[in-house]
Amino acid sequence: MSTHNTVSVDLGKRSYDVLVGEGLLAEAAQYISPLLKQDRVFIVTDEHIAPLHLEFLERSLCDSGISFETMVLPAGDRTKNFTHLRKLIDELLTRKIERSSTIVALGGGVIGDLAGFAASITLRGIDYIQIPTTLLAQVDSSVGGKTAINTEHGKNLVGMFHQPRLVLADITTLDTLPQREFLAGYAEIVKYGLINDPEFFGWLEGHGSTLRDGDRPGRIHAVVTSCRAKAEIVAADEREAGQRALLNLGHTFGHALDAETGFSDMLLHGEGVAVGMSMAFGLS
Amino acid sequence: MSTHNTVSVDLGKRSYDVLVGEGLLAEAAQYISPLLKQDRVFIVTDEHIAPLHLEFLERSLCDSGISFETMVLPAGDRTKNFTHLRKLIDELLTRKIERSSTIVALGGGVIGDLAGFAASITLRGIDYIQIPTTLLAQVDSSVGGKTAINTEHGKNLVGMFHQPRLVLADITTLDTLPQREFLAGYAEIVKYGLINDPEFFGWLEGHGSTLRDGDRPGRIHAVVTSCRAKAEIVAADEREAGQRALLNLGHTFGHALDAETGFSDMLLHGEGVAVGMSMAFGLS
Repeated sequence: MSTHNTVSVDLGKRSYDVLVGEGLLAEAAQYISPLLKQDRVFIVTDEHIAPLHLEFLERSLCDSGISFETMVLPAGDRTKNFTHLRKLIDELLTRKIERSSTIVALGGGVIGDLAGFAASITLRGIDYIQIPTTLLAQVDSSVGGKTAINTEHGKNLVGMFHQPRLVLADITTLDTLPQREFLAGYAEIVKYGLINDPEFFGWLEGHGSTLRDGDRPGRIHAVVTSCRAKAEIVAADEREAGQRALLNLGHTFGHALDAETGFSDMLLHGEGVAVGMSMAFGLS
Repeated sequence: MSTHNTVSVDLGKRSYDVLVGEGLLAEAAQYISPLLKQDRVFIVTDEHIAPLHLEFLERSLCDSGISFETMVLPAGDRTKNFTHLRKLIDELLTRKIERSSTIVALGGGVIGDLAGFAASITLRGIDYIQIPTTLLAQVDSSVGGKTAINTEHGKNLVGMFHQPRLVLADITTLDTLPQREFLAGYAEIVKYGLINDPEFFGWLEGHGSTLRDGDRPGRIHAVVTSCRAKAEIVAADEREAGQRALLNLGHTFGHALDAETGFSDMLLHGEGVAVGMSMAFGLS
Protein backbone atom coordinates (compact mmCIF):
# COMPACT_ATOMS: atom_id res chain seq x y z
CA MET A 1 0.00 0.00 0.00
CA SER A 2 1.57 3.27 -1.09
CA THR A 3 1.82 6.25 1.21
CA HIS A 4 -0.45 9.12 0.46
CA ASN A 5 -1.66 12.40 1.86
CA THR A 6 -5.27 12.86 2.95
CA VAL A 7 -7.19 16.11 2.71
CA SER A 8 -10.60 16.00 4.37
CA VAL A 9 -13.50 17.99 3.00
CA ASP A 10 -15.65 18.64 6.06
CA LEU A 11 -19.31 18.80 5.05
CA GLY A 12 -21.12 16.92 7.79
CA LYS A 13 -22.89 13.88 6.37
CA ARG A 14 -21.45 14.68 2.95
CA SER A 15 -17.81 14.75 4.13
CA TYR A 16 -15.18 12.92 2.12
CA ASP A 17 -11.45 12.53 1.67
CA VAL A 18 -9.14 13.60 -1.14
CA LEU A 19 -6.20 11.22 -1.30
CA VAL A 20 -3.09 12.53 -3.03
CA GLY A 21 -0.12 10.32 -3.83
CA GLU A 22 1.76 8.13 -6.29
CA GLY A 23 0.28 4.93 -7.65
CA LEU A 24 -3.21 5.36 -6.18
CA LEU A 25 -4.89 4.31 -9.41
CA ALA A 26 -3.37 0.84 -9.36
CA GLU A 27 -4.60 0.43 -5.77
CA ALA A 28 -7.93 2.14 -6.34
CA ALA A 29 -10.09 -0.78 -5.25
CA GLN A 30 -8.80 -0.78 -1.69
CA TYR A 31 -9.91 2.83 -1.22
CA ILE A 32 -13.14 2.50 -3.17
CA SER A 33 -14.29 -0.82 -1.76
CA PRO A 34 -15.21 0.33 1.77
CA LEU A 35 -17.52 2.98 0.31
CA LEU A 36 -19.55 0.72 -1.97
CA LYS A 37 -23.16 -0.25 -1.21
CA GLN A 38 -22.97 -3.01 -3.82
CA ASP A 39 -19.97 -4.64 -5.52
CA ARG A 40 -20.63 -2.99 -8.85
CA VAL A 41 -19.31 0.26 -10.25
CA PHE A 42 -19.82 2.16 -13.50
CA ILE A 43 -16.62 3.71 -14.85
CA VAL A 44 -16.98 6.79 -17.02
CA THR A 45 -13.89 7.88 -18.96
CA ASP A 46 -12.94 9.22 -22.39
CA GLU A 47 -11.15 8.03 -25.51
CA HIS A 48 -7.99 9.89 -24.63
CA ILE A 49 -7.69 8.67 -21.04
CA ALA A 50 -8.83 5.06 -21.55
CA PRO A 51 -5.68 3.80 -23.33
CA LEU A 52 -3.42 5.59 -20.84
CA HIS A 53 -4.93 4.76 -17.46
CA LEU A 54 -8.05 2.58 -17.62
CA GLU A 55 -6.34 -0.80 -17.35
CA PHE A 56 -4.79 0.03 -13.95
CA LEU A 57 -8.20 0.85 -12.52
CA GLU A 58 -9.92 -2.14 -14.11
CA ARG A 59 -7.22 -4.54 -12.95
CA SER A 60 -7.43 -3.24 -9.40
CA LEU A 61 -11.21 -3.70 -9.39
CA CYS A 62 -10.90 -7.17 -10.92
CA ASP A 63 -8.39 -8.26 -8.31
CA SER A 64 -10.78 -7.16 -5.58
CA GLY A 65 -13.81 -8.89 -7.06
CA ILE A 66 -15.65 -5.66 -7.82
CA SER A 67 -17.59 -5.95 -11.07
CA PHE A 68 -17.67 -2.97 -13.39
CA GLU A 69 -19.09 -1.58 -16.59
CA THR A 70 -17.03 0.94 -18.54
CA MET A 71 -18.34 3.78 -20.67
CA VAL A 72 -15.87 5.57 -22.92
CA LEU A 73 -16.96 9.01 -24.18
CA PRO A 74 -15.38 11.22 -26.84
CA ALA A 75 -12.56 13.38 -25.44
CA GLY A 76 -12.76 17.15 -25.31
CA ASP A 77 -14.82 20.06 -24.02
CA ARG A 78 -17.66 19.48 -26.47
CA THR A 79 -18.59 16.28 -24.68
CA LYS A 80 -19.76 18.30 -21.69
CA ASN A 81 -23.20 19.04 -23.13
CA PHE A 82 -26.85 17.98 -23.04
CA THR A 83 -26.48 15.46 -25.85
CA HIS A 84 -23.74 13.47 -24.15
CA LEU A 85 -25.39 13.79 -20.74
CA ARG A 86 -28.50 12.18 -22.16
CA LYS A 87 -26.52 9.46 -23.94
CA LEU A 88 -24.55 8.69 -20.79
CA ILE A 89 -27.66 8.42 -18.62
CA ASP A 90 -29.35 6.29 -21.23
CA GLU A 91 -26.34 3.98 -21.23
CA LEU A 92 -26.31 3.78 -17.42
CA LEU A 93 -30.01 2.87 -17.38
CA THR A 94 -29.58 0.35 -20.20
CA ARG A 95 -26.89 -1.36 -18.14
CA LYS A 96 -29.28 -1.42 -15.16
CA ILE A 97 -27.63 1.00 -12.81
CA GLU A 98 -29.28 1.02 -9.37
CA ARG A 99 -29.59 3.54 -6.56
CA SER A 100 -26.98 1.63 -4.61
CA SER A 101 -24.49 1.58 -7.50
CA THR A 102 -21.45 3.87 -7.66
CA ILE A 103 -20.12 5.83 -10.63
CA VAL A 104 -16.37 6.30 -10.97
CA ALA A 105 -15.24 9.28 -13.06
CA LEU A 106 -11.78 8.67 -14.51
CA GLY A 107 -10.45 11.65 -16.43
CA GLY A 108 -10.13 15.41 -16.51
CA GLY A 109 -12.64 18.10 -15.64
CA VAL A 110 -14.98 17.34 -18.54
CA ILE A 111 -15.45 13.73 -17.46
CA GLY A 112 -15.65 14.63 -13.77
CA ASP A 113 -18.24 17.35 -14.30
CA LEU A 114 -20.35 15.32 -16.71
CA ALA A 115 -20.23 12.02 -14.82
CA GLY A 116 -20.82 13.82 -11.52
CA PHE A 117 -23.86 15.56 -12.95
CA ALA A 118 -25.18 12.31 -14.40
CA ALA A 119 -24.69 10.72 -10.96
CA SER A 120 -26.64 13.52 -9.30
CA ILE A 121 -29.78 13.13 -11.43
CA THR A 122 -29.87 9.46 -12.42
CA LEU A 123 -32.43 7.73 -10.17
CA ARG A 124 -32.48 11.02 -8.22
CA GLY A 125 -28.90 10.67 -7.02
CA ILE A 126 -26.19 8.02 -7.08
CA ASP A 127 -22.82 7.98 -5.30
CA TYR A 128 -19.78 8.85 -7.35
CA ILE A 129 -16.02 8.86 -6.97
CA GLN A 130 -13.59 11.17 -8.73
CA ILE A 131 -10.27 9.94 -10.11
CA PRO A 132 -8.89 13.09 -11.73
CA THR A 133 -6.10 12.57 -14.26
CA THR A 134 -5.23 16.17 -15.10
CA LEU A 135 -3.63 18.75 -12.86
CA LEU A 136 -6.61 21.07 -13.35
CA ALA A 137 -9.04 18.40 -12.20
CA GLN A 138 -6.83 17.35 -9.28
CA VAL A 139 -6.54 20.81 -7.80
CA ASP A 140 -9.90 22.24 -8.76
CA SER A 141 -12.85 20.56 -10.45
CA SER A 142 -12.76 17.18 -8.68
CA VAL A 143 -13.03 18.79 -5.23
CA GLY A 144 -16.14 20.60 -4.01
CA GLY A 145 -19.03 18.88 -5.75
CA LYS A 146 -19.69 21.35 -8.53
CA THR A 147 -21.00 19.32 -11.47
CA ALA A 148 -22.34 20.73 -14.71
CA ILE A 149 -22.66 20.79 -18.44
CA ASN A 150 -22.22 23.72 -20.81
CA THR A 151 -24.98 25.12 -23.01
CA GLU A 152 -24.84 27.47 -25.94
CA HIS A 153 -25.59 30.24 -23.44
CA GLY A 154 -22.36 29.64 -21.54
CA LYS A 155 -20.30 27.31 -19.38
CA ASN A 156 -21.63 25.30 -16.45
CA LEU A 157 -25.11 26.83 -16.67
CA VAL A 158 -26.88 23.53 -16.00
CA GLY A 159 -25.72 21.39 -13.11
CA MET A 160 -25.88 20.49 -9.48
CA PHE A 161 -23.93 20.58 -6.23
CA HIS A 162 -23.31 16.88 -5.66
CA GLN A 163 -20.32 15.90 -3.53
CA PRO A 164 -18.25 12.84 -4.44
CA ARG A 165 -17.71 10.10 -1.86
CA LEU A 166 -13.95 10.11 -2.48
CA VAL A 167 -11.33 11.75 -4.67
CA LEU A 168 -8.21 9.83 -5.70
CA ALA A 169 -5.57 12.18 -7.09
CA ASP A 170 -2.82 9.97 -8.45
CA ILE A 171 0.15 12.21 -9.24
CA THR A 172 1.57 9.48 -11.49
CA THR A 173 -1.14 10.15 -14.07
CA LEU A 174 0.34 13.62 -14.62
CA ASP A 175 3.38 12.02 -16.27
CA THR A 176 1.39 11.58 -19.47
CA LEU A 177 -0.09 15.08 -19.38
CA PRO A 178 1.05 17.39 -22.20
CA GLN A 179 3.03 20.31 -20.84
CA ARG A 180 0.50 22.82 -22.11
CA GLU A 181 -2.22 21.15 -20.04
CA PHE A 182 0.07 20.95 -17.04
CA LEU A 183 0.62 24.70 -17.19
CA ALA A 184 -3.11 25.32 -17.58
CA GLY A 185 -3.67 23.45 -14.32
CA TYR A 186 -0.76 25.27 -12.75
CA ALA A 187 -2.68 28.52 -13.20
CA GLU A 188 -5.31 27.28 -10.72
CA ILE A 189 -2.54 26.35 -8.26
CA VAL A 190 -1.12 29.85 -8.50
CA LYS A 191 -4.64 31.12 -7.83
CA TYR A 192 -4.67 29.49 -4.37
CA GLY A 193 -1.37 31.21 -3.58
CA LEU A 194 -2.81 34.54 -4.68
CA ILE A 195 -6.10 34.18 -2.82
CA ASN A 196 -4.80 33.68 0.69
CA ASP A 197 -1.42 31.99 0.95
CA PRO A 198 1.57 34.27 0.26
CA GLU A 199 3.97 31.66 1.63
CA PHE A 200 2.74 29.08 -0.88
CA PHE A 201 2.92 31.68 -3.64
CA GLY A 202 6.56 32.29 -2.69
CA TRP A 203 7.25 28.54 -2.72
CA LEU A 204 5.72 28.28 -6.19
CA GLU A 205 7.97 31.08 -7.47
CA GLY A 206 10.96 29.00 -6.43
CA HIS A 207 9.66 25.63 -7.62
CA GLY A 208 7.57 26.34 -10.74
CA SER A 209 10.10 25.02 -13.21
CA THR A 210 10.92 21.81 -11.30
CA LEU A 211 7.18 21.12 -10.95
CA ARG A 212 6.77 21.55 -14.69
CA ASP A 213 9.69 19.21 -15.30
CA GLY A 214 8.14 16.38 -13.31
CA ASP A 215 9.31 16.65 -9.70
CA ARG A 216 6.86 14.32 -7.96
CA PRO A 217 7.33 15.28 -4.29
CA GLY A 218 6.95 18.91 -5.36
CA ARG A 219 3.83 18.12 -7.36
CA ILE A 220 2.34 16.29 -4.41
CA HIS A 221 3.02 19.27 -2.16
CA ALA A 222 1.42 21.63 -4.68
CA VAL A 223 -1.67 19.46 -5.18
CA VAL A 224 -2.15 18.80 -1.45
CA THR A 225 -1.79 22.50 -0.59
CA SER A 226 -4.25 23.45 -3.34
CA CYS A 227 -6.81 20.82 -2.32
CA ARG A 228 -6.51 21.88 1.32
CA ALA A 229 -7.16 25.50 0.35
CA LYS A 230 -10.16 24.55 -1.73
CA ALA A 231 -11.51 22.14 0.91
CA GLU A 232 -11.46 24.90 3.52
CA ILE A 233 -13.38 27.30 1.34
CA VAL A 234 -15.89 24.66 0.23
CA ALA A 235 -16.49 23.55 3.84
CA ALA A 236 -17.27 27.14 4.78
CA ASP A 237 -19.54 27.84 1.81
CA GLU A 238 -20.63 24.68 0.01
CA ARG A 239 -23.11 26.27 -2.37
CA GLU A 240 -21.22 29.46 -3.19
CA ALA A 241 -23.38 31.87 -1.21
CA GLY A 242 -20.34 34.02 -0.43
CA GLN A 243 -16.71 33.12 0.24
CA ARG A 244 -16.56 30.37 -2.37
CA ALA A 245 -16.81 33.04 -5.05
CA LEU A 246 -13.15 33.79 -4.19
CA LEU A 247 -12.31 30.67 -6.18
CA ASN A 248 -13.60 32.45 -9.26
CA LEU A 249 -10.62 34.83 -9.29
CA GLY A 250 -9.75 35.38 -12.94
CA HIS A 251 -12.78 33.39 -14.08
CA THR A 252 -14.99 36.29 -15.15
CA PHE A 253 -12.49 37.37 -17.78
CA GLY A 254 -11.53 33.73 -18.28
CA HIS A 255 -15.07 32.67 -19.18
CA ALA A 256 -15.40 35.58 -21.57
CA LEU A 257 -12.19 34.50 -23.27
CA ASP A 258 -13.41 30.88 -23.36
CA ALA A 259 -16.65 32.00 -25.03
CA GLU A 260 -14.85 34.28 -27.46
CA THR A 261 -12.64 31.39 -28.62
CA GLY A 262 -15.70 29.11 -28.97
CA PHE A 263 -14.71 26.84 -26.06
CA SER A 264 -12.16 25.37 -28.45
CA ASP A 265 -8.64 24.04 -27.98
CA MET A 266 -7.41 27.49 -28.96
CA LEU A 267 -7.59 28.40 -25.29
CA LEU A 268 -7.59 25.84 -22.46
CA HIS A 269 -9.70 26.67 -19.39
CA GLY A 270 -6.63 27.11 -17.20
CA GLU A 271 -5.04 29.38 -19.80
CA GLY A 272 -8.16 31.52 -19.79
CA VAL A 273 -7.97 31.70 -16.00
CA ALA A 274 -4.29 32.67 -16.13
CA VAL A 275 -4.93 35.46 -18.62
CA GLY A 276 -8.10 36.38 -16.70
CA MET A 277 -6.16 36.76 -13.45
CA SER A 278 -3.69 39.09 -15.18
CA MET A 279 -6.58 41.12 -16.57
CA ALA A 280 -8.22 41.24 -13.13
CA PHE A 281 -5.00 42.60 -11.63
CA GLY A 282 -4.69 45.10 -14.45
CA LEU A 283 -8.22 46.27 -13.76
CA SER A 284 -7.81 46.49 -9.96
CA MET B 1 -57.82 37.72 1.66
CA SER B 2 -59.54 34.34 1.54
CA THR B 3 -59.30 31.89 4.40
CA HIS B 4 -57.14 28.88 3.84
CA ASN B 5 -55.61 25.93 5.61
CA THR B 6 -51.88 25.64 6.10
CA VAL B 7 -49.98 22.37 6.15
CA SER B 8 -46.30 22.75 7.09
CA VAL B 9 -43.67 20.47 5.63
CA ASP B 10 -40.97 20.40 8.28
CA LEU B 11 -37.57 19.99 6.67
CA GLY B 12 -35.30 22.35 8.59
CA LYS B 13 -33.91 25.01 6.28
CA ARG B 14 -35.96 23.57 3.44
CA SER B 15 -39.31 23.79 5.26
CA TYR B 16 -42.30 25.23 3.44
CA ASP B 17 -46.06 25.59 3.63
CA VAL B 18 -48.82 24.02 1.59
CA LEU B 19 -51.80 26.39 1.50
CA VAL B 20 -55.14 24.79 0.68
CA GLY B 21 -58.26 26.85 0.03
CA GLU B 22 -60.60 28.53 -2.44
CA GLY B 23 -59.46 31.38 -4.68
CA LEU B 24 -55.76 31.18 -3.81
CA LEU B 25 -54.73 31.54 -7.43
CA ALA B 26 -56.29 34.98 -7.80
CA GLU B 27 -54.41 36.07 -4.67
CA ALA B 28 -51.21 34.21 -5.50
CA ALA B 29 -48.95 37.26 -5.46
CA GLN B 30 -49.54 38.00 -1.80
CA TYR B 31 -48.30 34.55 -0.82
CA ILE B 32 -45.49 34.44 -3.37
CA SER B 33 -44.17 37.94 -2.90
CA PRO B 34 -42.57 37.51 0.57
CA LEU B 35 -40.52 34.57 -0.75
CA LEU B 36 -38.99 36.29 -3.78
CA LYS B 37 -35.34 37.31 -3.92
CA GLN B 38 -36.05 39.50 -6.95
CA ASP B 39 -39.36 40.81 -8.34
CA ARG B 40 -39.30 38.51 -11.33
CA VAL B 41 -40.80 35.07 -11.78
CA PHE B 42 -40.88 32.55 -14.61
CA ILE B 43 -44.24 30.83 -15.00
CA VAL B 44 -44.24 27.36 -16.54
CA THR B 45 -47.60 25.95 -17.59
CA ASP B 46 -49.17 23.98 -20.45
CA GLU B 47 -51.54 24.57 -23.35
CA HIS B 48 -54.43 22.97 -21.54
CA ILE B 49 -54.09 24.88 -18.26
CA ALA B 50 -53.14 28.29 -19.70
CA PRO B 51 -56.58 29.23 -21.07
CA LEU B 52 -58.29 28.00 -17.90
CA HIS B 53 -56.20 29.47 -15.11
CA LEU B 54 -53.21 31.52 -16.28
CA GLU B 55 -54.91 34.91 -16.37
CA PHE B 56 -55.77 34.80 -12.65
CA LEU B 57 -52.14 34.24 -11.75
CA GLU B 58 -50.80 36.81 -14.20
CA ARG B 59 -53.31 39.44 -13.07
CA SER B 60 -52.39 38.88 -9.43
CA LEU B 61 -48.68 39.26 -10.22
CA CYS B 62 -49.34 42.37 -12.34
CA ASP B 63 -51.34 44.01 -9.57
CA SER B 64 -48.45 43.43 -7.17
CA GLY B 65 -45.80 44.78 -9.51
CA ILE B 66 -44.06 41.43 -9.95
CA SER B 67 -42.76 41.03 -13.49
CA PHE B 68 -43.07 37.65 -15.14
CA GLU B 69 -42.23 35.59 -18.19
CA THR B 70 -44.59 32.78 -19.18
CA MET B 71 -43.65 29.54 -20.91
CA VAL B 72 -46.47 27.40 -22.25
CA LEU B 73 -45.56 23.76 -22.97
CA PRO B 74 -47.58 21.09 -24.78
CA ALA B 75 -50.04 19.31 -22.46
CA GLY B 76 -49.73 15.62 -21.64
CA ASP B 77 -47.40 13.01 -20.20
CA ARG B 78 -45.11 13.02 -23.21
CA THR B 79 -43.92 16.50 -22.30
CA LYS B 80 -42.16 15.09 -19.25
CA ASN B 81 -39.04 14.04 -21.11
CA PHE B 82 -35.46 15.02 -21.91
CA THR B 83 -36.39 16.94 -25.06
CA HIS B 84 -38.80 19.27 -23.31
CA LEU B 85 -36.53 19.61 -20.28
CA ARG B 86 -33.78 20.84 -22.55
CA LYS B 87 -36.10 23.19 -24.44
CA LEU B 88 -37.47 24.61 -21.21
CA ILE B 89 -34.02 25.25 -19.75
CA ASP B 90 -32.88 26.78 -23.01
CA GLU B 91 -35.88 29.11 -22.92
CA LEU B 92 -35.21 30.06 -19.28
CA LEU B 93 -31.59 30.89 -20.11
CA THR B 94 -32.59 32.79 -23.25
CA ARG B 95 -34.87 34.92 -21.09
CA LYS B 96 -31.98 35.55 -18.71
CA ILE B 97 -33.12 33.68 -15.65
CA GLU B 98 -30.83 34.32 -12.66
CA ARG B 99 -29.95 32.40 -9.50
CA SER B 100 -32.19 34.73 -7.51
CA SER B 101 -35.18 34.24 -9.84
CA THR B 102 -38.15 32.02 -8.97
CA ILE B 103 -39.98 29.53 -11.17
CA VAL B 104 -43.73 29.07 -10.71
CA ALA B 105 -45.15 25.74 -11.90
CA LEU B 106 -48.85 26.13 -12.77
CA GLY B 107 -50.45 22.83 -13.77
CA GLY B 108 -50.69 19.14 -13.03
CA GLY B 109 -48.01 16.64 -12.13
CA VAL B 110 -46.27 16.77 -15.49
CA ILE B 111 -45.69 20.51 -15.28
CA GLY B 112 -44.78 20.36 -11.58
CA ASP B 113 -42.27 17.55 -12.03
CA LEU B 114 -40.71 19.02 -15.16
CA ALA B 115 -40.53 22.64 -13.97
CA GLY B 116 -39.31 21.52 -10.54
CA PHE B 117 -36.55 19.47 -12.14
CA ALA B 118 -35.58 22.34 -14.45
CA ALA B 119 -35.45 24.60 -11.36
CA SER B 120 -33.18 22.14 -9.57
CA ILE B 121 -30.49 22.04 -12.28
CA THR B 122 -30.65 25.44 -13.98
CA LEU B 123 -27.75 27.52 -12.65
CA ARG B 124 -27.27 24.71 -10.10
CA GLY B 125 -30.56 25.36 -8.36
CA ILE B 126 -33.31 27.99 -8.45
CA ASP B 127 -36.28 28.46 -6.12
CA TYR B 128 -39.65 27.24 -7.35
CA ILE B 129 -43.26 27.37 -6.27
CA GLN B 130 -45.94 24.80 -7.04
CA ILE B 131 -49.47 25.80 -8.01
CA PRO B 132 -51.06 22.39 -8.66
CA THR B 133 -54.29 22.47 -10.67
CA THR B 134 -55.24 18.79 -10.60
CA LEU B 135 -56.31 16.71 -7.63
CA LEU B 136 -53.44 14.30 -8.20
CA ALA B 137 -50.90 17.11 -8.09
CA GLN B 138 -52.54 18.77 -5.08
CA VAL B 139 -52.47 15.66 -2.90
CA ASP B 140 -49.31 14.02 -4.18
CA SER B 141 -46.78 15.28 -6.69
CA SER B 142 -46.61 18.94 -5.63
CA VAL B 143 -45.67 18.05 -2.04
CA GLY B 144 -42.35 16.47 -1.11
CA GLY B 145 -39.87 17.77 -3.65
CA LYS B 146 -39.70 14.77 -5.96
CA THR B 147 -39.00 16.14 -9.42
CA ALA B 148 -38.27 14.09 -12.51
CA ILE B 149 -38.65 13.28 -16.15
CA ASN B 150 -39.48 9.94 -17.76
CA THR B 151 -37.14 8.07 -20.09
CA GLU B 152 -37.77 5.18 -22.43
CA HIS B 153 -36.53 2.95 -19.61
CA GLY B 154 -39.34 4.00 -17.29
CA LYS B 155 -41.02 6.74 -15.32
CA ASN B 156 -39.20 9.28 -13.15
CA LEU B 157 -35.80 7.66 -13.70
CA VAL B 158 -34.00 10.99 -14.03
CA GLY B 159 -34.64 13.69 -11.47
CA MET B 160 -33.84 15.29 -8.19
CA PHE B 161 -35.11 15.90 -4.69
CA HIS B 162 -35.69 19.65 -4.77
CA GLN B 163 -38.25 21.07 -2.35
CA PRO B 164 -40.51 23.93 -3.46
CA ARG B 165 -40.61 27.15 -1.44
CA LEU B 166 -44.42 27.10 -1.32
CA VAL B 167 -47.37 25.08 -2.60
CA LEU B 168 -50.67 26.81 -3.39
CA ALA B 169 -53.47 24.28 -3.76
CA ASP B 170 -56.47 26.24 -4.99
CA ILE B 171 -59.50 23.94 -4.75
CA THR B 172 -61.37 26.18 -7.19
CA THR B 173 -59.18 24.96 -10.05
CA LEU B 174 -60.65 21.48 -9.60
CA ASP B 175 -64.00 22.76 -10.93
CA THR B 176 -62.65 22.51 -14.48
CA LEU B 177 -61.10 19.07 -13.97
CA PRO B 178 -62.69 16.26 -16.01
CA GLN B 179 -64.33 13.69 -13.76
CA ARG B 180 -62.04 10.94 -14.92
CA GLU B 181 -58.99 12.95 -13.78
CA PHE B 182 -60.70 13.78 -10.50
CA LEU B 183 -61.16 10.09 -9.80
CA ALA B 184 -57.57 9.33 -10.74
CA GLY B 185 -56.47 11.83 -8.10
CA TYR B 186 -58.98 10.40 -5.67
CA ALA B 187 -57.09 7.10 -5.81
CA GLU B 188 -54.08 8.78 -4.17
CA ILE B 189 -56.36 10.22 -1.48
CA VAL B 190 -57.72 6.75 -0.73
CA LYS B 191 -54.10 5.60 -0.50
CA TYR B 192 -53.47 7.89 2.50
CA GLY B 193 -56.50 6.42 4.23
CA LEU B 194 -55.22 2.91 3.55
CA ILE B 195 -51.64 3.58 4.65
CA ASN B 196 -52.28 4.82 8.17
CA ASP B 197 -55.58 6.58 8.71
CA PRO B 198 -58.61 4.24 9.05
CA GLU B 199 -60.75 7.11 10.31
CA PHE B 200 -60.09 9.12 7.16
CA PHE B 201 -60.73 6.02 5.07
CA GLY B 202 -64.11 5.68 6.78
CA TRP B 203 -64.88 9.36 6.14
CA LEU B 204 -64.02 8.89 2.47
CA GLU B 205 -66.40 5.93 2.20
CA GLY B 206 -69.19 8.23 3.36
CA HIS B 207 -68.24 11.27 1.29
CA GLY B 208 -66.76 9.91 -1.95
CA SER B 209 -69.72 10.75 -4.12
CA THR B 210 -70.24 14.28 -2.77
CA LEU B 211 -66.54 14.97 -3.26
CA ARG B 212 -66.82 13.79 -6.83
CA ASP B 213 -69.86 16.02 -7.37
CA GLY B 214 -68.01 19.16 -6.32
CA ASP B 215 -68.49 19.63 -2.57
CA ARG B 216 -65.80 22.23 -1.85
CA PRO B 217 -65.53 22.03 1.96
CA GLY B 218 -65.29 18.26 1.60
CA ARG B 219 -62.62 18.57 -1.07
CA ILE B 220 -60.65 20.94 1.13
CA HIS B 221 -60.83 18.47 4.01
CA ALA B 222 -59.68 15.64 1.77
CA VAL B 223 -56.78 17.61 0.28
CA VAL B 224 -55.64 18.99 3.63
CA THR B 225 -55.74 15.55 5.26
CA SER B 226 -53.82 14.02 2.36
CA CYS B 227 -51.18 16.77 2.33
CA ARG B 228 -50.77 16.46 6.09
CA ALA B 229 -50.23 12.70 5.78
CA LYS B 230 -47.71 13.17 3.01
CA ALA B 231 -45.94 16.04 4.82
CA GLU B 232 -45.43 13.85 7.89
CA ILE B 233 -43.91 11.04 5.90
CA VAL B 234 -41.70 13.36 3.85
CA ALA B 235 -40.47 15.15 6.98
CA ALA B 236 -39.46 11.79 8.46
CA ASP B 237 -37.78 10.47 5.30
CA GLU B 238 -37.09 13.20 2.76
CA ARG B 239 -35.06 11.13 0.33
CA GLU B 240 -36.99 7.88 0.53
CA ALA B 241 -34.47 5.87 2.51
CA GLY B 242 -37.27 3.97 4.25
CA GLN B 243 -40.72 5.02 5.40
CA ARG B 244 -41.41 7.23 2.38
CA ALA B 245 -41.61 4.07 0.27
CA LEU B 246 -45.03 3.57 1.93
CA LEU B 247 -46.28 6.23 -0.45
CA ASN B 248 -45.55 3.85 -3.30
CA LEU B 249 -48.43 1.57 -2.31
CA GLY B 250 -49.96 0.33 -5.53
CA HIS B 251 -47.23 1.98 -7.60
CA THR B 252 -45.22 -1.13 -8.46
CA PHE B 253 -48.13 -2.68 -10.30
CA GLY B 254 -49.24 0.81 -11.34
CA HIS B 255 -45.95 1.61 -13.07
CA ALA B 256 -46.01 -1.73 -14.85
CA LEU B 257 -49.52 -0.96 -16.10
CA ASP B 258 -48.41 2.54 -17.13
CA ALA B 259 -45.53 1.07 -19.13
CA GLU B 260 -47.70 -1.63 -20.67
CA THR B 261 -50.15 1.00 -21.95
CA GLY B 262 -47.27 3.10 -23.32
CA PHE B 263 -47.73 5.92 -20.78
CA SER B 264 -50.72 6.93 -22.89
CA ASP B 265 -54.11 8.41 -22.04
CA MET B 266 -55.45 4.86 -22.05
CA LEU B 267 -54.57 4.70 -18.36
CA LEU B 268 -54.07 7.78 -16.17
CA HIS B 269 -51.42 7.55 -13.47
CA GLY B 270 -54.01 7.60 -10.69
CA GLU B 271 -55.99 4.89 -12.43
CA GLY B 272 -52.88 2.74 -12.60
CA VAL B 273 -52.35 3.33 -8.88
CA ALA B 274 -55.98 2.42 -8.12
CA VAL B 275 -55.75 -0.82 -10.06
CA GLY B 276 -52.26 -1.39 -8.64
CA MET B 277 -53.54 -1.08 -5.07
CA SER B 278 -56.22 -3.66 -5.79
CA MET B 279 -53.62 -5.98 -7.26
CA ALA B 280 -51.35 -5.43 -4.24
CA PHE B 281 -54.19 -6.40 -1.92
CA GLY B 282 -54.96 -9.40 -4.06
CA LEU B 283 -51.34 -10.48 -3.80
CA SER B 284 -51.02 -9.87 -0.05
